Amino acid sequence: MSTPAISRFPVPVLEDLPEDLRSRIAKVQERAGFVPNVFLALAHRPDECRAFFDYHDALMLRKGGLTKAEKEMIVVATSSANHCTYCIVAHGAILRVVSKRPLIADQVAANYLKADLSAREKAILDFAMKVAEESHKVEEQDFARLREHALDDEDIWDVGAIAAFFALSNRMANLSAMRPNEQFFTMGR
Amino acid sequence: MSTPAISRFPVPVLEDLPEDLRSRIAKVQERAGFVPNVFLALAHRPDECRAFFDYHDALMLRKGGLTKAEKEMIVVATSSANHCTYCIVAHGAILRVVSKRPLIADQVAANYLKADLSAREKAILDFAMKVAEESHKVEEQDFARLREHALDDEDIWDVGAIAAFFALSNRMANLSAMRPNEQFFTMGR
Amino acid sequence: MSTPAISRFPVPVLEDLPEDLRSRIAKVQERAGFVPNVFLALAHRPDECRAFFDYHDALMLRKGGLTKAEKEMIVVATSSANHCTYCIVAHGAILRVVSKRPLIADQVAANYLKADLSAREKAILDFAMKVAEESHKVEEQDFARLREHALDDEDIWDVGAIAAFFALSNRMANLSAMRPNEQFFTMGR
Amino acid sequence: MSTPAISRFPVPVLEDLPEDLRSRIAKVQERAGFVPNVFLALAHRPDECRAFFDYHDALMLRKGGLTKAEKEMIVVATSSANHCTYCIVAHGAILRVVSKRPLIADQVAANYLKADLSAREKAILDFAMKVAEESHKVEEQDFARLREHALDDEDIWDVGAIAAFFALSNRMANLSAMRPNEQFFTMGR
Amino acid sequence: MSTPAISRFPVPVLEDLPEDLRSRIAKVQERAGFVPNVFLALAHRPDECRAFFDYHDALMLRKGGLTKAEKEMIVVATSSANHCTYCIVAHGAILRVVSKRPLIADQVAANYLKADLSAREKAILDFAMKVAEESHKVEEQDFARLREHALDDEDIWDVGAIAAFFALSNRMANLSAMRPNEQFFTMGR
Amino acid sequence: MSTPAISRFPVPVLEDLPEDLRSRIAKVQERAGFVPNVFLALAHRPDECRAFFDYHDALMLRKGGLTKAEKEMIVVATSSANHCTYCIVAHGAILRVVSKRPLIADQVAANYLKADLSAREKAILDFAMKVAEESHKVEEQDFARLREHALDDEDIWDVGAIAAFFALSNRMANLSAMRPNEQFFTMGR
Repeated sequence: MSTPAISRFPVPVLEDLPEDLRSRIAKVQERAGFVPNVFLALAHRPDECRAFFDYHDALMLRKGGLTKAEKEMIVVATSSANHCTYCIVAHGAILRVVSKRPLIADQVAANYLKADLSAREKAILDFAMKVAEESHKVEEQDFARLREHALDDEDIWDVGAIAAFFALSNRMANLSAMRPNEQFFTMGR
Repeated sequence: MSTPAISRFPVPVLEDLPEDLRSRIAKVQERAGFVPNVFLALAHRPDECRAFFDYHDALMLRKGGLTKAEKEMIVVATSSANHCTYCIVAHGAILRVVSKRPLIADQVAANYLKADLSAREKAILDFAMKVAEESHKVEEQDFARLREHALDDEDIWDVGAIAAFFALSNRMANLSAMRPNEQFFTMGR
Repeated sequence: MSTPAISRFPVPVLEDLPEDLRSRIAKVQERAGFVPNVFLALAHRPDECRAFFDYHDALMLRKGGLTKAEKEMIVVATSSANHCTYCIVAHGAILRVVSKRPLIADQVAANYLKADLSAREKAILDFAMKVAEESHKVEEQDFARLREHALDDEDIWDVGAIAAFFALSNRMANLSAMRPNEQFFTMGR
Repeated sequence: MSTPAISRFPVPVLEDLPEDLRSRIAKVQERAGFVPNVFLALAHRPDECRAFFDYHDALMLRKGGLTKAEKEMIVVATSSANHCTYCIVAHGAILRVVSKRPLIADQVAANYLKADLSAREKAILDFAMKVAEESHKVEEQDFARLREHALDDEDIWDVGAIAAFFALSNRMANLSAMRPNEQFFTMGR
Repeated sequence: MSTPAISRFPVPVLEDLPEDLRSRIAKVQERAGFVPNVFLALAHRPDECRAFFDYHDALMLRKGGLTKAEKEMIVVATSSANHCTYCIVAHGAILRVVSKRPLIADQVAANYLKADLSAREKAILDFAMKVAEESHKVEEQDFARLREHALDDEDIWDVGAIAAFFALSNRMANLSAMRPNEQFFTMGR
Repeated sequence: MSTPAISRFPVPVLEDLPEDLRSRIAKVQERAGFVPNVFLALAHRPDECRAFFDYHDALMLRKGGLTKAEKEMIVVATSSANHCTYCIVAHGAILRVVSKRPLIADQVAANYLKADLSAREKAILDFAMKVAEESHKVEEQDFARLREHALDDEDIWDVGAIAAFFALSNRMANLSAMRPNEQFFTMGR
């Protein structure tokens, strides 16, 4: 059987990419041991790809009040609501790794309301899901509830912005039928 | 009465922004005659702001098979589905200006199915709405239908990517209760 | 280009209408400066047309606790939920005129939850939307909440009945692909 | 136990009503043997009540291509979608009487897709349900399908207008917690 | 006219059924005066049929804190949400008989929120509907609310399990287009 | 940290169970190497538990036209629609084992429309999802489509009945907050 395509759009060869994208991808490959397919699929459009990862890194690498695990949980929960196979599988793997909780990704993807979560994590995901599914109804009491769990306004921006960014990411992955690398399925279990 | 806030998060003063953002905003102001509030509201986070507008420009300024009016229609239709006041009003104004059709923005925002659209425009918005609302169901026959209207795969990427990008944009505007400048309400009518 | 049809059903010529409808329409024309298309489109069925405007006037012209602006807001918000182009545009215009708030109609049509509304207006629209979208769930505590904003039972009947009447009106406009007069798009801005 | 209220709003005494409403109600009582509660509940507002029954009669008594049974089926199916107890029960009774099919009302209320219907009746209810639930999506091919079942444009107006009128009626009944007369529950079985 | 089929799948002749099913059905027939069609329709698969009625009886005949009427109300309300004609009609009949309230079944099927229910019955149906429609959101405060109405955990299991069992039953009836016996339509009125 | 509960209801000790349930569970334990929590959680009610597994086995062990993998796919896809953590995780494991396709369970749970499926598997899941989510709309053309993929009516009963049975199972698991054994998370990867 032939290797399944990682995108329904053309996928560039690494060597043909602009230097900055090539070196960005090389660094990820060094750290992860493989090139996550999202880089290759989106590199079909270098300008959009660059902006995508700039945005991603600005949010996901930013030092703030949210832990890495909390950020990845937001990705898994909202990507599951959007039925985005790539993000559930790839960020599920990262969530397992950064949280050292091997069951948490599958639990959050299935039904975060019954997952092994702290009250704070539950409140964060409630807010993230509201941004993902009916952002026009976000209101001050949603902010107030998160402040009860020690999030300040900058942290709440992060929760909402990560849910918003993956609203974009999930749609691009679904549009392009993006395929997760096999490595992600077993990582961190 | 005091001026209403343009965002529920802190809004930076132009002078305090990094040089590149300041000059980017200055150029927009020169062309439009005012600073659209989205620049100030998002500049609260300069890195995210920069990536946001890089992404926006990569899609909206790209030369391709879609007209400017088709691109702005996608924004208005999907922003209406997401109940994003900022994007409906601001991009509705731009749509009127670039299309020279003064009624089209209000029609598309209310119900694009009954708007004065060509068959091609209708097909583009059907696809964009599917990406906005249930991207996980996008399938090959959706692509086929757009090809009947003379869109190639690159154009279809544009349709989907604009719908996806404004899924992010709409959620950020709703999260921050972003307020459209008054100028947008009457522009191009 | 030919003038677009104002209804997908036959539209009567004014002279052929029964005398009472003709004089009713003449009065509106005198006041507004033009004949709103809804009169011509519905006059295809004179008996239904007469009852429609009797009902409309009984509700909209009735002296009671609601202001004219509050009544028109109910129309715009619920018509937006029903994606009725005619009513959003025509009553949006009336709302701007009677409220002297040029931005309010576009705000309410986009997302009344983020519009510039008083707490009382917000409560009225919450109730009206419940009647429009899930009237079977209306319960005593919905009434109680409106009473906190100085509405009595007669006022609440008005809120609910206007939402109910435009449930009819929106469906007739959508059924007949009713087209708003161009004048409405710019009136009161 | 006291008699349950027929409306959560004040219910007028017959004698206090304007003469024309009193005589209208007297005629119904003569024919039916009792006064259907909808007359008393709506007579709380005589002007609206008059317009309501004028509209109702213009549609339901009009001679056209639809049979009485087809009209009542539309009422039962759309009222069930709106969870309106009064209209399901009262018009279910009328449907049994005019159609002489004692099972049809309960079948249509439960799931018209599995009711004992002709292909024409099924097509009529499909259209009526679309007007009731998502009228903004009505399009020419919906009209075309009904024409295959020998409905002309006037008949299609009737189907849509009855669905639209009961969108109003259902909401008024739900708003006022209108209670069906006991007689309706067993009539025509 | 020929007798309408009671199932779109083959319906076995009583004599051909295994002895235990035949005697089980004979007992029901003796008590009811006729064989409810669900027995014949499901007997197409004897093993599944046996398990179905074992499960049914374990729940519906169990002595516990719920009255027979409360159990049948759960069936009618959740079957209405699932648009299952067979269960609404057949269990509606049983509900009328066991409750001696001739109006209750039609009220609960139309809109249980406006039915003549005690506060306890209303709370039971709220819980049952949540299990029927969004069981993944059931949480401890749902249990707490039922305990306020004197249900203990075993009673709550019963409410949830009846809603769950009829989720199965409704789907089998819809899959097989199961037809209620005519007797059920008038029983207990 | 204490072991998390496997059910929010009391969980019986194996030794206290009726002999037939104990021996049934012993056989499963022998084959699987552990006792799946569903047996213990449901054994709280022995009669219901017995009927549940009789039904389960009648469907899942029946020889017919569906492969074991096809049956388990139906379980995973519909359980994901119902957000049932237990069934997604436990039957996802079984699906991996019986299909020898280590990625398939996560793909089907995330979005079966983009999973690595044959046309026949896709058609089976489309039908199963319709039974799970809107069984009242199942119609003859749904049967016709499955017959194009070499399913006969008995096979279609199996598809529908498995979706129906897990509608029950998912609701019981959600009601009782049933917890999957840790072994299931990694089995067959």
